[in-house]
Amino acid sequence: MSETMDMDTKMQQFDEDVEKIISLLEEKAYFKARDEILKYNEVDIGEVLEEVLEELGVEKTIILFRMLPKDVAVEVFSYLPTDDQLEIVQGITDREISYIIQELDFDDKIDVLEELPANIVDKILEKTPKEERKLINTFLNYPDTCAGSLMTPDYISLQETMTVAEAMAHIKREGMDSETVYTCYVKKRGRKLEGIVSLRALVIADDDTLISELMNTDYVYVSVYDDQEEVAETFKKYGFLAIPVVDKEHRLVGIITVDDILDVIEEETTEDMERMAGVMDDSDTEYLDMGVFRHVRNRLPWLIFLTVSLMITGTIITKFEAVLAQVIVLVSYLPLLMGTGGNAGSQAGTLIIRGMAVDDIDLKDAFKVFWKELRVSIILGVILSAFNMAKVVFIDGQSVMIGLTVAASMILIIMFAKLVGGLLPMAAKKIGIDPALMATPMISSLTDMVSAVTFLVIASLLLGISL
Amino acid sequence: MSETMDMDTKMQQFDEDVEKIISLLEEKAYFKARDEILKYNEVDIGEVLEEVLEELGVEKTIILFRMLPKDVAVEVFSYLPTDDQLEIVQGITDREISYIIQELDFDDKIDVLEELPANIVDKILEKTPKEERKLINTFLNYPDTCAGSLMTPDYISLQETMTVAEAMAHIKREGMDSETVYTCYVKKRGRKLEGIVSLRALVIADDDTLISELMNTDYVYVSVYDDQEEVAETFKKYGFLAIPVVDKEHRLVGIITVDDILDVIEEETTEDMERMAGVMDDSDTEYLDMGVFRHVRNRLPWLIFLTVSLMITGTIITKFEAVLAQVIVLVSYLPLLMGTGGNAGSQAGTLIIRGMAVDDIDLKDAFKVFWKELRVSIILGVILSAFNMAKVVFIDGQSVMIGLTVAASMILIIMFAKLVGGLLPMAAKKIGIDPALMATPMISSLTDMVSAVTFLVIASLLLGISL
Repeated sequence: MSETMDMDTKMQQFDEDVEKIISLLEEKAYFKARDEILKYNEVDIGEVLEEVLEELGVEKTIILFRMLPKDVAVEVFSYLPTDDQLEIVQGITDREISYIIQELDFDDKIDVLEELPANIVDKILEKTPKEERKLINTFLNYPDTCAGSLMTPDYISLQETMTVAEAMAHIKREGMDSETVYTCYVKKRGRKLEGIVSLRALVIADDDTLISELMNTDYVYVSVYDDQEEVAETFKKYGFLAIPVVDKEHRLVGIITVDDILDVIEEETTEDMERMAGVMDDSDTEYLDMGVFRHVRNRLPWLIFLTVSLMITGTIITKFEAVLAQVIVLVSYLPLLMGTGGNAGSQAGTLIIRGMAVDDIDLKDAFKVFWKELRVSIILGVILSAFNMAKVVFIDGQSVMIGLTVAASMILIIMFAKLVGGLLPMAAKKIGIDPALMATPMISSLTDMVSAVTFLVIASLLLGISL
Repeated sequence: MSETMDMDTKMQQFDEDVEKIISLLEEKAYFKARDEILKYNEVDIGEVLEEVLEELGVEKTIILFRMLPKDVAVEVFSYLPTDDQLEIVQGITDREISYIIQELDFDDKIDVLEELPANIVDKILEKTPKEERKLINTFLNYPDTCAGSLMTPDYISLQETMTVAEAMAHIKREGMDSETVYTCYVKKRGRKLEGIVSLRALVIADDDTLISELMNTDYVYVSVYDDQEEVAETFKKYGFLAIPVVDKEHRLVGIITVDDILDVIEEETTEDMERMAGVMDDSDTEYLDMGVFRHVRNRLPWLIFLTVSLMITGTIITKFEAVLAQVIVLVSYLPLLMGTGGNAGSQAGTLIIRGMAVDDIDLKDAFKVFWKELRVSIILGVILSAFNMAKVVFIDGQSVMIGLTVAASMILIIMFAKLVGGLLPMAAKKIGIDPALMATPMISSLTDMVSAVTFLVIASLLLGISL
């Protein structure tokens, strides 16, 4: 990697190397494969192992994994997806498992222990010193999506009365992780968090400066049961590298580092997007790793809901059979109006849901949203109506009254769709429902019903057909 | 902020303080307002100013802004949204502008200069030392979404031949930003990047260790023209705090820090979500700050596209008028089938688009996606068909043949929708089109057409109606 390559070239190079390693393993040239793999850093080695596991199965993967230097093996293990970690755990000895778990960073250790079968966890905990076992149990009990589940207890503690020189000597002795060393935490008696000092401040300050002079007591922190989405918002807002987590008594219980927040943001965004498309998935399992029945279970509830709503729309339409039977051409405009309504609504819905998710839009902006969508929908409605009227009259050769029916319905439907799309997610948030659930599927099912009724009522009025 | 509060309480407290500050400003109690605002840190002060600007207008905001201590004012300025920065710039003197710009961190400086009117930029550059002016001009020329536009030239440079003690003394002299100090960069002659050393390694190492012994030469880097989305992926993959940016000759031109990547991820995700809902917006303007006509312009193209596609579907339906006129009840099932198809397709589309965006799904997985969606769609199709058939026959009291027509169409439509939803985004990526453009609007317009044809053809076959 000594020369500059752009991303594509790098990835291509990597893919070629992976293929090479796989064919070396197939030929049982294990040592050559290991030498090849050790050119990469631990994150990339993790990716190679994933590929090997997929292509050659678990036995060869474990042979290769065992050939890695011990410290590399531990780090690589921490980067593997949970499923792959479990496969490897099942293939290695208890002693090897214990070694890996012991060497993992605390937060990775918790993540792995959470997923391992209970009997393996018990075996590992038996061999763990009592103090750490207690700590592990506390961490394992934090709910999955709260600040507590993201934090690590590995941080640098200082005292107010230390000098910079003493603090630096302390840091040198502890020799922490690269992620967690850059902010140090000053605690009072009873573990209460007093202030924070950045390593940068320590490095720049004179040796005999007191920590109490350097520390920042007006720091931002999160509470251990704060939701991970709020923690992520705090990181985004302030641009921190780490943030302290305190309990009810304001005792420092751990810190959260920004690298874990990148994963949280990805997870939360994926959840939002899936919900917005009517997929209910509460796991973090990747698409390809998820079984067919699980996919069915995730997608069925909304499809059933939507089908029922569309059945109701269908029943409404049958009430207007008289209108449709008389002017059968109206049938061909029904999907046009319903479809345009659904799309117009989902545009507005997505903008508002995303705007609220990134804190650009607040509940108190409801009237502004209403006013903006009202004007946007009138303009869009007029343009699309004119366009459709022209098509109905000049291209389809229908009467002007039918053209007017389509045009008038179009304006009303777009206005309704935009306003519902904009305000429904806000109403949901107001009453504590995830706005992402009010996206396309919900909005379009509402819009569909209203579109059908609007169109058919206007048709019967304008065309003078009695219902 | 000395006691623990959960997020909601904190936010409520903040909102109350903002109201207090605004009423103080209304009463012209400027000094009290300033004292109140200075309790908060710079990010929060920025938020207060945003509120003040919105509630009380630009004059009062500028009075308050001018009363802030100079260093606080500069930092607060850097956190304001671009629109608000421009409003403030227009209200303060050239000298104040120059001061702020000069004091900003280099990457913030570039961001501000990019948005300022050319005449103000020229004035500022006139007063800038020649070397820096050259650098600013180079940075201003990087395209908006590449690595170059995200980087800062403020980083710590070391030499291989330095000892740790010399390096630490150097860092102390430079006294960099908190974000950029934690990784140091070792350069050869000709500015070529040789290796990187973390501040952690320096702190832990003995004073007389040579940098060449500590540095990591197998570092990950990006190229100056790499797309920001790829840079974000690199950060997510490796969990770095900063990453070096090199040019074609592998010279170090700057570094990118993780706090800027959080913004990139947010921006890219928002763009994806908007595109997936048929909103074309190439600006970063927030929903509420965007004018009505701009909103119309962003939403009109897809609505027109969809309307045309729905017109075509309508025309197809008119070809089957004979079928519909004979069995008018079929009309009420048409939206049901079209709607379910659209929803089923958009579920699959969203899963695949998101899966590709987070690198869980690769183009080479196309067959796996096909096979998974095929099975999922058959199971979902059978369940929904049975459900619908029961409704048609037992609740609506229609004939079994009509029930069968609906059921058979339902299975075929769901299969088609899931396969198109899954594979269309992959095909788009293959030929270099953003998969997000192939989401709900595109998938549902295709599904609509196919649904209509499928249903009406099956109806005419099963019900024995000649076309």
